[in-house]
Amino acid sequence: MMLAVSCARFCSGLAAFRTAARVRPLHSVSGTTVAQIDEEVAKLLELKAQLGGDDGKTQFVLKTPKGTRDYNPKQMAIREKVFSTIVSCFKCHGAETIDTPVFELKETLTGKYGEDSKLIYDLKDQGGELLSLRYDLTVPFARYLAMNKITNIKRYHIAKVYRRDNPAMTRGRYREFYQCDFDIAGQYDAMIPDAECLKIVHEILSALELGDFRIKVNDRRILDGMFAVCGVPDDKFRTVCSTVDKLDKMSWENVRKEMVDEKGLSEEAADQIGVYVSMQGGMDLAERLLQDPKMSQSKQACAGLSDIKLLFSYLQLLQVTDKVVFDLSLARGLDYYTGVIFEAVLTQACMTPVSTDTQNGSEENVSVGSVAGGGRYDGLVGMFDPKGRKVPCVGVSIGIERIFSIMEQKAEASAEKIRTTEVQVMVVSAQKNLLEERLRLVTELWNAGIKAEMMYKKNPKLLNQLQHCEEAGIPLVAILGEQELKDGVVKLRVVATREEMDVSRADVISEVRRRTSEA
Amino acid sequence: MMLAVSCARFCSGLAAFRTAARVRPLHSVSGTTVAQIDEEVAKLLELKAQLGGDDGKTQFVLKTPKGTRDYNPKQMAIREKVFSTIVSCFKCHGAETIDTPVFELKETLTGKYGEDSKLIYDLKDQGGELLSLRYDLTVPFARYLAMNKITNIKRYHIAKVYRRDNPAMTRGRYREFYQCDFDIAGQYDAMIPDAECLKIVHEILSALELGDFRIKVNDRRILDGMFAVCGVPDDKFRTVCSTVDKLDKMSWENVRKEMVDEKGLSEEAADQIGVYVSMQGGMDLAERLLQDPKMSQSKQACAGLSDIKLLFSYLQLLQVTDKVVFDLSLARGLDYYTGVIFEAVLTQACMTPVSTDTQNGSEENVSVGSVAGGGRYDGLVGMFDPKGRKVPCVGVSIGIERIFSIMEQKAEASAEKIRTTEVQVMVVSAQKNLLEERLRLVTELWNAGIKAEMMYKKNPKLLNQLQHCEEAGIPLVAILGEQELKDGVVKLRVVATREEMDVSRADVISEVRRRTSEA
Repeated sequence: MMLAVSCARFCSGLAAFRTAARVRPLHSVSGTTVAQIDEEVAKLLELKAQLGGDDGKTQFVLKTPKGTRDYNPKQMAIREKVFSTIVSCFKCHGAETIDTPVFELKETLTGKYGEDSKLIYDLKDQGGELLSLRYDLTVPFARYLAMNKITNIKRYHIAKVYRRDNPAMTRGRYREFYQCDFDIAGQYDAMIPDAECLKIVHEILSALELGDFRIKVNDRRILDGMFAVCGVPDDKFRTVCSTVDKLDKMSWENVRKEMVDEKGLSEEAADQIGVYVSMQGGMDLAERLLQDPKMSQSKQACAGLSDIKLLFSYLQLLQVTDKVVFDLSLARGLDYYTGVIFEAVLTQACMTPVSTDTQNGSEENVSVGSVAGGGRYDGLVGMFDPKGRKVPCVGVSIGIERIFSIMEQKAEASAEKIRTTEVQVMVVSAQKNLLEERLRLVTELWNAGIKAEMMYKKNPKLLNQLQHCEEAGIPLVAILGEQELKDGVVKLRVVATREEMDVSRADVISEVRRRTSEA
Repeated sequence: MMLAVSCARFCSGLAAFRTAARVRPLHSVSGTTVAQIDEEVAKLLELKAQLGGDDGKTQFVLKTPKGTRDYNPKQMAIREKVFSTIVSCFKCHGAETIDTPVFELKETLTGKYGEDSKLIYDLKDQGGELLSLRYDLTVPFARYLAMNKITNIKRYHIAKVYRRDNPAMTRGRYREFYQCDFDIAGQYDAMIPDAECLKIVHEILSALELGDFRIKVNDRRILDGMFAVCGVPDDKFRTVCSTVDKLDKMSWENVRKEMVDEKGLSEEAADQIGVYVSMQGGMDLAERLLQDPKMSQSKQACAGLSDIKLLFSYLQLLQVTDKVVFDLSLARGLDYYTGVIFEAVLTQACMTPVSTDTQNGSEENVSVGSVAGGGRYDGLVGMFDPKGRKVPCVGVSIGIERIFSIMEQKAEASAEKIRTTEVQVMVVSAQKNLLEERLRLVTELWNAGIKAEMMYKKNPKLLNQLQHCEEAGIPLVAILGEQELKDGVVKLRVVATREEMDVSRADVISEVRRRTSEA
């Protein structure tokens, strides 16, 4: 996606290298390494471009900013399909939608993201307010609720968010990316809205047909209780929690090392945490931990465990327990969670290598990471309210970019052609000097609401016009020629069958309608 | 939309003042003055908040950044309806869609916007590339074409753009606002794609039912030729053009003054320009100007005038000449236009005052400004191409925020209730302890793809549940009670008629489907 001026040859070599690296993402060249190489190459090209090309003219790099990309029409077709599936589900559950600005006052975001705050994009101070790009949709939602004194809402919000993170674009990790959030705000009875959020994740991941998945569930109160009974000092809960959050990317050994060496935890505390975070189960595990001599010492942990039991009882009624697992290693990085937390991961390697020289079994290690996550955050709205009035909230965010990556690869692998327009009929001319006649007919079609197009040339070749129909997947052609004009007809051609028939000019609209509604 | 912590009373007074000012935007308190007062008040409140409230706690202002707004669910419902009308039209004309990042490399935007460049939002230099928020969708489109070596495309792009302008939000002028762009790129025969752009503006403004409108057309070559024959020095073309562009907001006297006093033009030149820019007409005016002794001296002007004639001949075939007028005062501010330019204005005052103390005739002077604009820019892609290869382009941008403002006011004025969800059936309980039964039924409905909801309380009151249906416009209620459970039925209630019937549990899905597809 990057291209520097006056080094086209170098770049096309680079593109070939990249393409090769992308089709074998699982082998000797790992995703991270490719990303690192990309970054270095980008820096060098930028430098080269700034220095000016061989002709001494000012040169500049022709690219999108680091970690971002354009969507071409094919990618947009996939994106719109995914969005429409997700929005249908949100609407099925009765959600309204809102939108907020892409930037917020800097202070609105301050103190909400813990260690991740360094990844926030700030705007330049050009006079006036200090602004930052939104980091997620949750904090703007909380600000919206407090500002408008809303105490009850079920809303979805689909929009781009911004993080100055290290991008790994081949794996769907970008600096500008979409979030699809569904949240329920309001003072309700325990675990009912929480259970619906999990139902929604289940419905969306099933509908998108991404292969098998698991939804891990835990509770911040269980984590905090666990930290307390394992002897973690109160002021280290959040930082130790961030380390536990890395268990999906790092081995336990390395997580333990970070806890002890970097976070200054005692070895005993770390080892006791190690016992708990290896536990996975269902309602039974919650039951067992409620009897655990250590864990049951913590009131917080017990409250969390009782709620997990209640949650599972609702999940049974909602018919989603097959995919949900209570997992004590699930931590989630963000500071604002206060209760249930959850994360969905795909368990089938959807990103299968295209090349044939697969190393045995290496696919098993591939993970696109979590594709959805969320939890309960009862304190966030209160942080914005002048009187600290709380509005309990629970919500889920669908990690759409990773899903796009998978869908794109699926589309590339399949033989099915993706149409990027919806044109039903192309108006073409068989001879010269028929521009006016084409304009007349296409106007008739447009005025009747039929999706139609024609070539913007005075005298296009018939073959070129028909070829465009084949390439763009346009099902019908309306051919105008001298003979047809004389006879007062239009020749309709069905592209798929090459069948042709003369239709009287007065019947063209109804005939096109009839034939396109059939398809 | 702004609220400062611990000064709620002051603010509610302010809100009352604002509301009063908004309903009478045409009278003693003009739009600009209100905006200025708002700004001053905002500054003072921010200062007050930073100083801390009476209790000494740190305080902050709870608002969206200056010139931006949230969209609430009702506004979103209107927005989605408008977008869907516009997208339908773009698709009817066979357009694909693309998306680009919200920010670009700063240098990508440099030198494209002339005097407006000062309004670009820059991001803070946090290490790495220097970035700016996109100012329009045209420059990113040109960058996209050059980067991907695309020479032919018909695409639309709907996205937000950013300008650090003086907002006038009551009139739909924001710092963050949507643009809906349709562009045709490619080397084609003169005026054919240009005519389609005008057809699209005509279709969209007609479909949105915003009242009568005019589409003004001119050509940069006619303007430049006119400047040349009037004796404007070459290096002053662009800056004089910016002044002419103000004719829709300023009187000729003031425009003339700016030309002479600020831009240093001779009085004779200004007066000669004054003669031309008062001219309006159709194909006949182009014909006449081709015979004009002065104007016909300019090759550029003649080329532009011939193309205007050709354009009108195509517009006749496209059946849109009723709304199009050739207007020599139309200039458009942006630097990159090279040929035909156009702008659509609403000619009926849609923004009628709500209050009754209307001053006579003042409505006539109201204008929401242009609601669409565009033109031909044949040089922009070449500015990004390493070898300067040109890709001729023509396009149109729909000024959607002004249209939203009008639609919102129409919606407020009308009695019709806007639904913000699509829920078809609400599952309610008539007695206590029926949460599990409600969860079972709502799961069945969701699994069948029916839009359904229930209250997140264990034992909600029947009245509250029914009230929610009335308020949210939900057409059906599925009532569960002890008797119904015993009988193996669900009581279906039609909210509009209050008609109730028992439906056997096995038939609920099909009965709900039947009743909601009817509506």
